[in-house]
Amino acid sequence: MSDSDSNSEVRRKVRQIVRFENGSFESQSDFLATEEPLEIRVVFGPVEKRKDRSLSITMRTPGNDHELAAGFMLGEGIVARPDEIVRFEETGKQDEETGKSNQLCVHLRETVTFDFGSLQRNFYTTSSCGICGKASLEAVRAQLKEPVSDDEFQVDPSVIRALPSTLRKYQSTFDETGGLHAAGLFDQNGKLIDCREDVGRHNALDKLIGKQFLDAVTPLQRKIVLVSGRASFELVQKVISTGATILVAVGAPSSLAVELAEEFGVTLTGFTSHDRFNVYSHANRIGS
Amino acid sequence: MSDSDSNSEVRRKVRQIVRFENGSFESQSDFLATEEPLEIRVVFGPVEKRKDRSLSITMRTPGNDHELAAGFMLGEGIVARPDEIVRFEETGKQDEETGKSNQLCVHLRETVTFDFGSLQRNFYTTSSCGICGKASLEAVRAQLKEPVSDDEFQVDPSVIRALPSTLRKYQSTFDETGGLHAAGLFDQNGKLIDCREDVGRHNALDKLIGKQFLDAVTPLQRKIVLVSGRASFELVQKVISTGATILVAVGAPSSLAVELAEEFGVTLTGFTSHDRFNVYSHANRIGS
Repeated sequence: MSDSDSNSEVRRKVRQIVRFENGSFESQSDFLATEEPLEIRVVFGPVEKRKDRSLSITMRTPGNDHELAAGFMLGEGIVARPDEIVRFEETGKQDEETGKSNQLCVHLRETVTFDFGSLQRNFYTTSSCGICGKASLEAVRAQLKEPVSDDEFQVDPSVIRALPSTLRKYQSTFDETGGLHAAGLFDQNGKLIDCREDVGRHNALDKLIGKQFLDAVTPLQRKIVLVSGRASFELVQKVISTGATILVAVGAPSSLAVELAEEFGVTLTGFTSHDRFNVYSHANRIGS
Repeated sequence: MSDSDSNSEVRRKVRQIVRFENGSFESQSDFLATEEPLEIRVVFGPVEKRKDRSLSITMRTPGNDHELAAGFMLGEGIVARPDEIVRFEETGKQDEETGKSNQLCVHLRETVTFDFGSLQRNFYTTSSCGICGKASLEAVRAQLKEPVSDDEFQVDPSVIRALPSTLRKYQSTFDETGGLHAAGLFDQNGKLIDCREDVGRHNALDKLIGKQFLDAVTPLQRKIVLVSGRASFELVQKVISTGATILVAVGAPSSLAVELAEEFGVTLTGFTSHDRFNVYSHANRIGS
């Protein structure tokens, strides 16, 4: 059910630009990270009264759209197992340049139930930001039976420090455009399992998570997730939904991200680079 | 009507962390950028059937909330003039630590009309990202009578190059937390007029724009807006709503950001630093 897309032509566009350097202007062509809207729709309910509803509209880099939708729906607690998704259907018009559809319907098994009205209220949000913290905190609590409590799991600090440079090696489109966020999944020894890129940092994580979910390898116990930017409340929320144990951020965490990680047993590091990092919660898992 | 808030205690929280550096761990206290939810509600309609509706829930750094709401509503085309906002009312519970309310009602003049249903559909979005590009493009087109077409306006490249370091000097909370995005407003000579910080890059821009709007100095003709991160579709959209002429991004622009800037007459630069930058649209305004 995965739609891995290694075609980098979809993820970047060529454009003529003017570069200013060394005191002079020069016209040249350059790559831009592609940003296009995707509407995710959900088809659900018993066969006699099947419903088709718009779930979300996101600005994303085309490609891996099934993963994006699946990861998003896992994070929101709409689905819990991959077999709850019956099929994906691309229903919108194709984008002329990328050849990708801008509308994706996710057909759920008839037995899957969720409160669409409550979800709609939660999604009622600006694009900047995140879903309402307090409401989501309740939703996260409701979804999770109990926090991650794996205190046996230990990772060496040298593993944490090496993750950002490992991820960069696999960020093909970033190198060309400088404009993509990335999310990577690693094992206890720092071996890269998978990575995804997107103009939106939440989307990169949704794609990464969605891939694992569709491959039925969630929960991601004893796994490490790396995000290329900052750690916000919502990114921590998404990681919690996967059961991963450690979240490593290259940038800074927010106050609410740290509070959530602390409460749900996730080890959170920030400002992670080859020579240093900070641990904001459950530091006991990092040691040599 | 502005609520400028210079109290940095609200914008950051102190937390005990474990720092790994030079091969060893050390426990110390550190500052985190505050992230808290804010619900923006709008009260509108004729006196006999006044309505009170939730407009948006955003994860923001507390402070300057009136500006945030005003800038957001300007960008969405709900208000066009500051006198259309009658008053702000903080209605939610106060946050125990920050003392800030988490709910803000914006009371509009009775004569202000807008299509709440259509707005609701547009906001139907994930938090990662941005409002649907195509829908918003139409909305932007509907809001603006015609693109910015000021070809007389010329800025020297040395002015553009100097903007990021000027902004950094005023980013007080960033220096402490490393976790805030910033947006700055500059005149033709690179003089800083105003700046705002927030964990969300869209919020920083909304606060900056909202301040100018409430002070009745919009449209921002012949002004330069600087954003500390990447330029997405939605940031360009917000800048267009202010009438500003040049948008300078420290990071990369997306494909759709460039297309929108090109169409609406905005000069867009990216990867802007002290020695170089790229111009993606309307390069004729930058020259010496």
